[in-house]
Amino acid sequence: MQASGLITLTTDFGLQDSYVAMMKGVLLSIHPQARPIDYTHAIAPQNIAQAAYQIHTGYRYFPPGTVHLVVVDPGVGSERRAIALQTPEAFFVAPDNGLLALIWYEALERWGRAELVAVELTEQRFWRQPVSATFHGRDIFAPVAAQLAAGRSIHELGQPIEEIALIERLQAQRGRPGELLARIIHVDNFGNCITNVTLEDLRSAGLEEQPLIMIIDQQITGLCRTYADGQMGTPIALISSSGFLEVAVRNGNAAQQLGVGIGDLLRVYA
Amino acid sequence: MQASGLITLTTDFGLQDSYVAMMKGVLLSIHPQARPIDYTHAIAPQNIAQAAYQIHTGYRYFPPGTVHLVVVDPGVGSERRAIALQTPEAFFVAPDNGLLALIWYEALERWGRAELVAVELTEQRFWRQPVSATFHGRDIFAPVAAQLAAGRSIHELGQPIEEIALIERLQAQRGRPGELLARIIHVDNFGNCITNVTLEDLRSAGLEEQPLIMIIDQQITGLCRTYADGQMGTPIALISSSGFLEVAVRNGNAAQQLGVGIGDLLRVYA
Amino acid sequence: MQASGLITLTTDFGLQDSYVAMMKGVLLSIHPQARPIDYTHAIAPQNIAQAAYQIHTGYRYFPPGTVHLVVVDPGVGSERRAIALQTPEAFFVAPDNGLLALIWYEALERWGRAELVAVELTEQRFWRQPVSATFHGRDIFAPVAAQLAAGRSIHELGQPIEEIALIERLQAQRGRPGELLARIIHVDNFGNCITNVTLEDLRSAGLEEQPLIMIIDQQITGLCRTYADGQMGTPIALISSSGFLEVAVRNGNAAQQLGVGIGDLLRVYA
Repeated sequence: MQASGLITLTTDFGLQDSYVAMMKGVLLSIHPQARPIDYTHAIAPQNIAQAAYQIHTGYRYFPPGTVHLVVVDPGVGSERRAIALQTPEAFFVAPDNGLLALIWYEALERWGRAELVAVELTEQRFWRQPVSATFHGRDIFAPVAAQLAAGRSIHELGQPIEEIALIERLQAQRGRPGELLARIIHVDNFGNCITNVTLEDLRSAGLEEQPLIMIIDQQITGLCRTYADGQMGTPIALISSSGFLEVAVRNGNAAQQLGVGIGDLLRVYA
Repeated sequence: MQASGLITLTTDFGLQDSYVAMMKGVLLSIHPQARPIDYTHAIAPQNIAQAAYQIHTGYRYFPPGTVHLVVVDPGVGSERRAIALQTPEAFFVAPDNGLLALIWYEALERWGRAELVAVELTEQRFWRQPVSATFHGRDIFAPVAAQLAAGRSIHELGQPIEEIALIERLQAQRGRPGELLARIIHVDNFGNCITNVTLEDLRSAGLEEQPLIMIIDQQITGLCRTYADGQMGTPIALISSSGFLEVAVRNGNAAQQLGVGIGDLLRVYA
Repeated sequence: MQASGLITLTTDFGLQDSYVAMMKGVLLSIHPQARPIDYTHAIAPQNIAQAAYQIHTGYRYFPPGTVHLVVVDPGVGSERRAIALQTPEAFFVAPDNGLLALIWYEALERWGRAELVAVELTEQRFWRQPVSATFHGRDIFAPVAAQLAAGRSIHELGQPIEEIALIERLQAQRGRPGELLARIIHVDNFGNCITNVTLEDLRSAGLEEQPLIMIIDQQITGLCRTYADGQMGTPIALISSSGFLEVAVRNGNAAQQLGVGIGDLLRVYA
């Protein structure tokens, strides 16, 4: 796989500081032809699970050989490792705190362990010096991402590792027979509530035909195909464009209307 | 007109989701040399009129042959058409729901119908497959925009159409003789209130010399040339940099101070 | 120094308007190979000091020959000058209202006056015509930035000037012997409070060993090396990644917890 020269940036830095600009400057100083692309900088501060979801849901739309730089780093300066990961499709650079868990699970299933390369970033000659104690995004992760985008082999960047840090898979749990316990993992700009239930989950629980969804005290029956199938003002369920069960209100804000947010529970029945 | 390779993106997606990143990934996957440029992603959810105003006011500053991708799409999944439009200066790709109304009116006046090409996007071979029911921005509009930016002729993308969907022109209305009824169509980051009245409107109503503007219970007399001409704390009127009548407060926030917002009414008298 | 083709944009325009897009369009119309990079557009409206701090803290991470376009312009349309500045490392284009003060002080110390070129932008043939009275960012500053990025000499852009406008240096003041009076100059996305005290300031006041910091009614003793050294929930002080004394709370929001914001006072003692 050849590097595409593209580097996406996902952080919890927001856009009001110069942190993102500094990382872009470092990328372009090391690899002047790099093409930095903002992915999102609005991850809730230190919310590793949300970032893991976000990068997983969208990285696949980028050209092969794109470098995905993900920096949500509550443990900066502590002993957590810094890592890079190469799959047959993409490169990832991140602190080793679970950010790449969903990528890792999917890649294992899809290609198997032998096709993945994970390294701990130990080759300090590729870092900015001196390394600040509080901003490894600028001093370690961005420089390493620039090296990958410029075509340097991941093997030069550090020592191979067997495993990366994983967070509990954001997967729907089976409840009683015929019941699936789901959680809201993201609320988008329109108030649509994205859950951790995939169409595959519904199928394997035998719930894909006309599921009954309980959220707070509301009940939703069946799946709509599009937002436009819903009645104005009434909550509906559908499979989102990223493949997850989603609760929405046509031309409305479901999260506000239902009074729910990230982490809240849904139950799905036959 | 040759494609410039630039593609601007205007949406109501906000920046906290991965939707914008997905569209950029799709653009770059289809046309690796494309140069995506964020125009704005802060259109109020599903506010077609605001998006129509925003793209109209700024597209002209980009090089000829730029593709402007505009996705505010409350009817996604319903029967609304998807369209592309070519003027002698630029390309536009959008759902056919009024987003391009101001562009269309202006282009008709400036070049005449014969110089414009409008097509309904029907050639599915240029779309991502499968097409999701909820995210045509990623699966139809971005792929088509990438094709245009790569130099493909608009005629290959679908069937020519005579008319596009138009929304009521955001135009000031004549009231009683010597009176113009105006509305606020946008409030900018500084609280400046931009109205739908142009200098041309003032002229043709004979109001360009020393107009009297009533907004809520405040009265503003005459036009200032710059913000700096105003007294601190006092509302002033001037012609904005985009050519519309604007109400502002020097070094202050006019919308907050006057308690007004998008849609509110002003009256202009001689 | 050769132009890198990169142009960073720092403004108080926010992202909900088309002002930033217009400037990018102008840059790319004049210099099609220009590479505009968003630095930040979230400067508080008309806050020159904050913008001066932001551009100063991050510009150095960009490749030599990058053009930094900084537009926070409360005096637009008045008699304030428009300027460009060239140091041995970078170009800057801005209204002459203090935005480049910290750059100027640092460049004077580092290279001396003879190595700096400052010009008043007077060559109107490089501007967009007509020049609007309210948006010089689009009509003067962006066109001139594009010229510099395309390789035009700064000497062609206007008349050399001896001095630029300076704002009071955001420098910590000596209080009583052994006391330093500091102020918060920026609160970042995590609530970290960045002050105007550098490590150098602490050293020259003999305070670098175990300083005692008073903020509101809280007392912080000594400096931590990283956020992870702090106890959860307790305010700590450390030297930030940009070299300034910073007050933070590990995995928390110091500004909220302490009830402080930009401009608030701290005292540092031995």
